[in-house]
Amino acid sequence: MIIDCHGHYTTAPRALVDFRERQKAAFAAGAVGGLDTKIRISDDEIRESLESKQIRIQAERGVDLTLFSPRAAHMAHHVGDAAASELWTRHCNDLIHRAVSLYPDRLVGVCQLPQSPGVSPANCIPELVRCVEELGFVGCNLNPDPTDGYWTDPPLTDRHWYPLYEKMVELDVPAMVHTSCSCNPNFHFTGAHYINGDTSAFMQFLDSDLFKDFPTLKFIIPHGGGAVPYHWGRYRGLAQNMGRPPLDALMKNVFFDTCVYHQPGIELLMTVVPPENILFGSEIVGAVKGIDPTTGYNYDDTKRYIDAVAWLPPQTRSKVLSGNALQVYGRLRRQLQAQGVPVPG
Amino acid sequence: MIIDCHGHYTTAPRALVDFRERQKAAFAAGAVGGLDTKIRISDDEIRESLESKQIRIQAERGVDLTLFSPRAAHMAHHVGDAAASELWTRHCNDLIHRAVSLYPDRLVGVCQLPQSPGVSPANCIPELVRCVEELGFVGCNLNPDPTDGYWTDPPLTDRHWYPLYEKMVELDVPAMVHTSCSCNPNFHFTGAHYINGDTSAFMQFLDSDLFKDFPTLKFIIPHGGGAVPYHWGRYRGLAQNMGRPPLDALMKNVFFDTCVYHQPGIELLMTVVPPENILFGSEIVGAVKGIDPTTGYNYDDTKRYIDAVAWLPPQTRSKVLSGNALQVYGRLRRQLQAQGVPVPG
Repeated sequence: MIIDCHGHYTTAPRALVDFRERQKAAFAAGAVGGLDTKIRISDDEIRESLESKQIRIQAERGVDLTLFSPRAAHMAHHVGDAAASELWTRHCNDLIHRAVSLYPDRLVGVCQLPQSPGVSPANCIPELVRCVEELGFVGCNLNPDPTDGYWTDPPLTDRHWYPLYEKMVELDVPAMVHTSCSCNPNFHFTGAHYINGDTSAFMQFLDSDLFKDFPTLKFIIPHGGGAVPYHWGRYRGLAQNMGRPPLDALMKNVFFDTCVYHQPGIELLMTVVPPENILFGSEIVGAVKGIDPTTGYNYDDTKRYIDAVAWLPPQTRSKVLSGNALQVYGRLRRQLQAQGVPVPG
Repeated sequence: MIIDCHGHYTTAPRALVDFRERQKAAFAAGAVGGLDTKIRISDDEIRESLESKQIRIQAERGVDLTLFSPRAAHMAHHVGDAAASELWTRHCNDLIHRAVSLYPDRLVGVCQLPQSPGVSPANCIPELVRCVEELGFVGCNLNPDPTDGYWTDPPLTDRHWYPLYEKMVELDVPAMVHTSCSCNPNFHFTGAHYINGDTSAFMQFLDSDLFKDFPTLKFIIPHGGGAVPYHWGRYRGLAQNMGRPPLDALMKNVFFDTCVYHQPGIELLMTVVPPENILFGSEIVGAVKGIDPTTGYNYDDTKRYIDAVAWLPPQTRSKVLSGNALQVYGRLRRQLQAQGVPVPG
């Protein structure tokens, strides 16, 4: 069973985006409460949007299952206020649930959170609980910068975030650290803001005792860990200089996906990061579209790069492609069984 | 001749920092103009600070020459105002000039610029001209975020920066894109802010026509290019998706140093980036101190990693270790001759 831990519903039917535009207009007019919250999307529209893209590509690439969440760039937590974020988030998560219900052998849900700049992440707890306990989701996406480009909220290691972490631990769900769009012209969203968010989060973890307070809290850092594996020596050296424990000490809590879109990058990741800490991911349908003319295959066909790492022992490949996801997402095995999917091992 | 393009005077005598503290206090008290601007540092103090560190380490590692600039973390452009930045910058650059004058066969100067948040970089032109024409400096460090962590000034590709670029082109001096300290608790300075600055700058360049306007403008992106080489496939794919030219189109203008502190990172850099675009750098005395227990050598002894890339053709190694620096820093050859140093080739 091959599990892609990183997929977003980027091809959601247009009615979802139309709702968001109406919501923004209503918010600007001071009338969020009065907004018609219905979004009319038929099951056939969902099927069409998935079978033409997500489900088709999974099948073509031999991927069995994707941990599927709302489109990251559209979380846009800076928009409106906490109530607007909550309304939008519920709609996005409900749509994921409908997609999962239509393809329970292909998708498992991961939720967006109703974050809002300057607002305690405790406000996310009800939606997290709803998604996990009622909708069967197995993880969440956590935006380390709800301002979407100006980074004025506290770092992920601040007590500001602790109420949410307590609930994540209680529910046994990890978070993927994932920024959203960027309002800052200095940061292209997929070319800089995503990667900077990954790098910054790792360094925050390195420089804190967060995992002393939460020994079972787990984060997946996407996009191959940002800059971190490339600078693994820098981070080992910084930990040493700063009197912090070696990076090994983070490896029960911090994981990396494989959204690195060329062979040398994947080889580096596999060389420096412990194999238990790497989860197959591709971020389809995605951040980087198109066919790499140097290979003739899609940039984001990351399974192909992993398959091509000749020196990777079969057991390691198996861990990366599925075993690690089943470990890190503590509810995944049960949820798959609940969705009627047999799980090996 | 082995040329390290990236060294900062991190061991400057204490009187320099003491001055900065007095300056901050004076600024806080509204009295910058009345500040005693004398800094008393003897030649012997400079010799001692260099021979115990910079010059000794260069000799130990077989590095002939370092392009030497003021300490990056202490540029701190957010402090005070443009006048305070200018005063501080002049002192820092003057001290580099004194160091170079004492070790003209070992050091060549690169200047700090008197940037200030919200102020046109045109204000940097007089100091750049002074450093290049009077002091014999061959490049400058350009902070892409003069706010030091909040990124509210325009991207490097904005016309805001053009007056400075015009002067850089006229003088034939490149800039190393180098952030300074971080006031933002989300960004550790050497662990996140530096690397994010590198990544962001590259993506800004990719997404603009800056080099159509300035075909001979040159930037060195330090710290191995931030996350960029690790995500080379992502950047190739983004350029393609966005209808931008292939990355090759940037390679007359954008260069990377080798401040990557482990063997696999250097191997990746050498694998993906054209050899003409890689300049040896180590950032001593530096950002990452200490001995790597896995190798028994200093993390920042980057020449050792380059030497260990077995497949690197000798001509490529030679370009990386010196030839490329002589190309990118257009005034370097003449300046070395002016300093009485014979230059091969």
